[in-house]
Amino acid sequence: MPRYALLIEYDGSPFVGWQRQVNGLSVQQVLEEAAAPLNGGALPETTASGRTDAGVHAEGQVVQIDLAADLPPERIREALNTRSRPYPVAVLSVTRPPEGWSARFSALGRAYRYRVLNRRPRPALDMGRVWHVPQPLDAAAMHEAAQMLLGRHDFTSYRASSCQAKDALRTLDRLDVSRLGNEVVVQTAARSFLHHQVRNMVGTLVEVGLGRKPASWPRQVLDGRDRSRAGQTAPPDGLTFLRAEYADRLDWC
Amino acid sequence: MPRYALLIEYDGSPFVGWQRQVNGLSVQQVLEEAAAPLNGGALPETTASGRTDAGVHAEGQVVQIDLAADLPPERIREALNTRSRPYPVAVLSVTRPPEGWSARFSALGRAYRYRVLNRRPRPALDMGRVWHVPQPLDAAAMHEAAQMLLGRHDFTSYRASSCQAKDALRTLDRLDVSRLGNEVVVQTAARSFLHHQVRNMVGTLVEVGLGRKPASWPRQVLDGRDRSRAGQTAPPDGLTFLRAEYADRLDWC
Repeated sequence: MPRYALLIEYDGSPFVGWQRQVNGLSVQQVLEEAAAPLNGGALPETTASGRTDAGVHAEGQVVQIDLAADLPPERIREALNTRSRPYPVAVLSVTRPPEGWSARFSALGRAYRYRVLNRRPRPALDMGRVWHVPQPLDAAAMHEAAQMLLGRHDFTSYRASSCQAKDALRTLDRLDVSRLGNEVVVQTAARSFLHHQVRNMVGTLVEVGLGRKPASWPRQVLDGRDRSRAGQTAPPDGLTFLRAEYADRLDWC
Repeated sequence: MPRYALLIEYDGSPFVGWQRQVNGLSVQQVLEEAAAPLNGGALPETTASGRTDAGVHAEGQVVQIDLAADLPPERIREALNTRSRPYPVAVLSVTRPPEGWSARFSALGRAYRYRVLNRRPRPALDMGRVWHVPQPLDAAAMHEAAQMLLGRHDFTSYRASSCQAKDALRTLDRLDVSRLGNEVVVQTAARSFLHHQVRNMVGTLVEVGLGRKPASWPRQVLDGRDRSRAGQTAPPDGLTFLRAEYADRLDWC
């Protein structure tokens, strides 16, 4: 059964998340139903490089899909983009990955962006795409605090209580905070993240940005290994899955 | 009756346009209903610097509003942003303009941006915010053609048949076309525009970008003074009203 890699973009607002659930429409369901006619009518199996929660967006999610037929990648892309209408999911590119490749297990890195709209008026054009924090944030203090979280640590304090990973040991490669006009943007990268890790880190850094906690606090929270000590989980709206990286470069069509 | 100037942002997708209409919700209606409690319960009168059509967005629309009471600008901003929920309209700033100032008639310039998503896959994250043109566009040819439309001309060929302006003589100050990755962006500015002028110019320039017409064609269309010779009216989705300019600088709060 040939395996294909899909590079996809979606607006997470109308979905219960990447993964199929009984309580609503998922990105996975939209894709699998759109792909069924390419698979003899049967729902194909898909796996994403990183599962995203309800309301979280993606600019470059990577998905593996196994189809019954050997088809030109362009044809798969066109068919999926036609049949997934009117949902805000688009297949940007399709390729045949190397033998044994897995979207999830072969990924060597994942990158996310988190956008905070930091102005008094609520968002209009960016509704659903940003976390609105009306009080002024000190982005430099947030960046300073973020640097102390880099490296290999037990991220228990930053994982969701529902997180199913066996252990909380992760290596954080990048956690940059910068200001762009009235936005505070967090860019982060790691081999993998725990459930809610990015949103919990952002929620904790915002406490520093608001001046409620010192820049040393997020690291103290980390060292405490106690979820209840961290800041709030930042809302999903501001989060976008940017890309996944693999040892073998994929030749996207 | 004190007059205030509002700087507002909106996502045009759910609206019938700026202006009140019997067939659906307008930005004007949302604002006026939100402002009524600041006006003794009566609907205030508002006028925008530029009326936008259904589906057209604004980053910096300027609106005048006359209210019964003398109120601090910050209070008006906060009240309107609270009461206009959940609609995608936000008041960015409020100020008291100089005596005799009119949002519409005092405006010396208006600027718009038009975004074309120029890639094969349809938009997902930018659905409703771009015109999707899947065939490759030659942005340099479009820019070359655009420069021949600058200056003072009779823009009859580029006005809507429904346009109510007395004459079609307008001075086009800027019409720049550039490529940013897989987007072709048109930036334009003039003292004022005719109804559908920007969308008709973009629709005509796209014919050049697709190679169906030479770069000299949009100017020939202009000189022909015949609406039926121009290209299609580009869809509203890609259009955003950016700002209005006035002789007196407004001191936004």
